[in-house]
Amino acid sequence: MKKQVCISEIGPRDGFQNVEEFIPTEVKLRIIDGIIASGVKRVQITSFVSPKAIPQMQDAGEVVTECLHKYPDTSFYALVPNLRGAENAAKHGLKEVSAVISVSESHNMANVKKTLDESFAQLKEMIDSFPQMHIILDAATAFGCPVQGITPYESLKSYMERARVLGIDSCTVCDTIGAASPNQVREYFTQLRKDFPEIAFGAHIHDTRNMGMFNTFVAVECGVSHVEVALGGLGGCPFAQGASGNTSTEDFVYMLHDMGWGTGIDFDKLLATAMYAKEHVQGNFSGHHINITRNHRVQ
Amino acid sequence: MKKQVCISEIGPRDGFQNVEEFIPTEVKLRIIDGIIASGVKRVQITSFVSPKAIPQMQDAGEVVTECLHKYPDTSFYALVPNLRGAENAAKHGLKEVSAVISVSESHNMANVKKTLDESFAQLKEMIDSFPQMHIILDAATAFGCPVQGITPYESLKSYMERARVLGIDSCTVCDTIGAASPNQVREYFTQLRKDFPEIAFGAHIHDTRNMGMFNTFVAVECGVSHVEVALGGLGGCPFAQGASGNTSTEDFVYMLHDMGWGTGIDFDKLLATAMYAKEHVQGNFSGHHINITRNHRVQ
Repeated sequence: MKKQVCISEIGPRDGFQNVEEFIPTEVKLRIIDGIIASGVKRVQITSFVSPKAIPQMQDAGEVVTECLHKYPDTSFYALVPNLRGAENAAKHGLKEVSAVISVSESHNMANVKKTLDESFAQLKEMIDSFPQMHIILDAATAFGCPVQGITPYESLKSYMERARVLGIDSCTVCDTIGAASPNQVREYFTQLRKDFPEIAFGAHIHDTRNMGMFNTFVAVECGVSHVEVALGGLGGCPFAQGASGNTSTEDFVYMLHDMGWGTGIDFDKLLATAMYAKEHVQGNFSGHHINITRNHRVQ
Repeated sequence: MKKQVCISEIGPRDGFQNVEEFIPTEVKLRIIDGIIASGVKRVQITSFVSPKAIPQMQDAGEVVTECLHKYPDTSFYALVPNLRGAENAAKHGLKEVSAVISVSESHNMANVKKTLDESFAQLKEMIDSFPQMHIILDAATAFGCPVQGITPYESLKSYMERARVLGIDSCTVCDTIGAASPNQVREYFTQLRKDFPEIAFGAHIHDTRNMGMFNTFVAVECGVSHVEVALGGLGGCPFAQGASGNTSTEDFVYMLHDMGWGTGIDFDKLLATAMYAKEHVQGNFSGHHINITRNHRVQ
């Protein structure tokens, strides 16, 4: 029996969000079709944000409605920055959302103009207002922050203690700026699982400094419940222009399979979907398989 | 005392060789200046091949003469495909060369039109003809071959036994097509070091499938004597068009330092040299730091 990893595809959110030109809704849906056809069971499908702030996500409701109707067995979730986002997600039938709070207070202030107290108060309100909604907490800047530098583990720990008090049982630990090293990833996840055995931790790794594949694998070795990766490595990093995006789903799946892990995903179908996306979306695809135009496969 | 890794910069050979447009000799020399100024102690500086086959390397002699004169304390070596190459290298004052023989016989036939018997006979002749020259054996397709598929460890082992008989004491194990997984790299290097304790092994990893950083680090963990990496990740793979090149020197050095290893290299100077190279050389630079145009550093 192979060890299994749960792959959360977040290209339709973190990938698309970094694309300037509006991607027609039917193209988005066709890419999601391909992702699901390849065997992915969990997709962060969009974010319910202000269409003025991020016009790319203006069709969030339509995307969610279509997908829930078409794929009742897939786990879909969306990112929500606030109560209104959660309300919108609930209205469209989603049962799971991720809510973001930065570990670094400076980053949280810069990002959403709130102190950590204010953000956690808002999270409590969200939990109280939507008791049927499963809320995953996204711990942004968990490893490093563009303002404060390296995030000490103690800051992450006290952040997580506040989350635990609110009843959070699932948290995605994010290397928002792609600055963690494999050592730091191993240390923090090992410590988190020891200090918070009742919380399921996921990993969200940016490939900014070329450590995405390695870091994401280290998180898997540490026993995270899921890893967030993006088709084609689409995306970027708001703190480093020209940077690569999240770890590429197909590159990571290829490596996992090669190393004897199971994902339930058909690599060839996934790569074909990534190729389709690259053809139809004007973005920064930093995956490696996707950029190989003629390939001598070794099997 | 930090653990140390010997970084062999091979951009001036494997990187430049993949660049179609001739790079002026003075640009090559300026890049080598930058590499050495950043603290790199070992550089594969060129290859002595037929200028008709690879016009980019037509200035091999000039590059070697200049560098030996300017930097008497740096270890320079060149790649040589045959006796004439070794003769040329010796004539220009080099004391070290790498000679390539594929582990896969099919690949060796396709590459140099020789059986393994013929190639090893040529290697013996090279050793006998140039007793003062230190010859490193480059074991191409040590992990996988575009013709034969995955290289079994037994093939690598019997290849290495032939090398040992000839007195080879240093061998660079090459993932020529970038198809190895970190598990395979760990397994082969661990086994090699056990079976051939008298041979110093180096690693030469292609980043074709986005496993370059991880694989190169695994080789380091296995105790290789040196790793061959290329400035800016310049290069490609003759078996996969559009593919990334070798592991990027500066990305790898950044990660090593972050993980507590010493290299003796100044990362900022190295990155500045990679930036200079990217500006002056029309090639496929797949490193990550080099592609970040505006960066919020986290230190």
